[in-house]
Amino acid sequence: MARVTQAHLDARRRQILDGAALCFARNGFHATSMQDVLKEVNLSAGAVYRYFSGKDELIAAIVGEVLGVLGSTYEGAAAETPPPLPDVLLPRALRQLREARPVLLASGEWLFSRLLVQVWTEVLRNPELAEVLRAGYERVRGAWAMVVEGYKSAGLIPADADADALARVMIALAQGYTVHLAVFEELPPETLEKGLRALMSMRAPQPSE
Amino acid sequence: MARVTQAHLDARRRQILDGAALCFARNGFHATSMQDVLKEVNLSAGAVYRYFSGKDELIAAIVGEVLGVLGSTYEGAAAETPPPLPDVLLPRALRQLREARPVLLASGEWLFSRLLVQVWTEVLRNPELAEVLRAGYERVRGAWAMVVEGYKSAGLIPADADADALARVMIALAQGYTVHLAVFEELPPETLEKGLRALMSMRAPQPSE
Repeated sequence: MARVTQAHLDARRRQILDGAALCFARNGFHATSMQDVLKEVNLSAGAVYRYFSGKDELIAAIVGEVLGVLGSTYEGAAAETPPPLPDVLLPRALRQLREARPVLLASGEWLFSRLLVQVWTEVLRNPELAEVLRAGYERVRGAWAMVVEGYKSAGLIPADADADALARVMIALAQGYTVHLAVFEELPPETLEKGLRALMSMRAPQPSE
Repeated sequence: MARVTQAHLDARRRQILDGAALCFARNGFHATSMQDVLKEVNLSAGAVYRYFSGKDELIAAIVGEVLGVLGSTYEGAAAETPPPLPDVLLPRALRQLREARPVLLASGEWLFSRLLVQVWTEVLRNPELAEVLRAGYERVRGAWAMVVEGYKSAGLIPADADADALARVMIALAQGYTVHLAVFEELPPETLEKGLRALMSMRAPQPSE
């Protein structure tokens, strides 16, 4: 029997995750069976179950990867001086997410957003998946808080601004961007950038005005 | 037979919608049957089907109401001079949404967010519901654009800021707020307010810096 290299194992794992993500995005988590996944990736049950015990493990792995990409992006940004501003950073994170899973762009539409909306519904009833999501969320939240500290050090934001509140607003905006894409229409990262820039350019009415 | 007043009809309709919203939020749209709704509202099939032909009509009515509340809130804000800034307006809209459906607050948790996350998943496969959502979205988007024009008239935002991009970012943020509430944890409107204020207080690094 030929020795199986780590690269081969990784590629196979990647292939299964991509196929499962496509199936879930297209038809929903519940309407997708493991048979559908096997058919999509054109592998035997034995080959697939060697990597994943079932749909729950597949969706957890997909969610973990997404949050890993976001966590790395924001941690990298926190290490820059100064960190990129939100109108640059959030679109960057979303672009990196698109690029990390090119298979979900195959049809021209970003199926990823459909996948995530279904993940959130699934999370409401699946405590293990909720745990994966929460762990990734805590990492992203911490990274965003470090980014905001970087803004403060560079004098880009008042020292008394609420770093955690800003972190949570930025996370909520990324989530909302995904919903917007899935249920309404294409929302290019450039639009997000312009909208954020407009928001950042506001000034409060002065008491004397 | 006693004459049925309009007030009675409205109250009955309200009772059915609230009961259905509770069922959908708790157990999901698909796992809820019309029998469950009848049981929740303690009415006969005849009494309920007089108002709604089934689950699809119920969820469409619930979604229509939500978007109606948001549309009114933003249209009212656009009529103010100047309109309230985003850090005030978005939390106001979310508070009005909470108050419009007190039954969903009964348990202390805002079940509404769980309901909406499920609506988005349902929209992916239900073109009629997608149409209701889209119509409400266009109204909200138009109202937000008027709000932004109000900011411009008052000199609160540069004249060349992208009004539609800002409108869409604000809508995405409201959607993301709902996801955040449903899948992570309580996100008080005050946190949203502080986070938005921090974002609005940012200043771009100057080229000379």
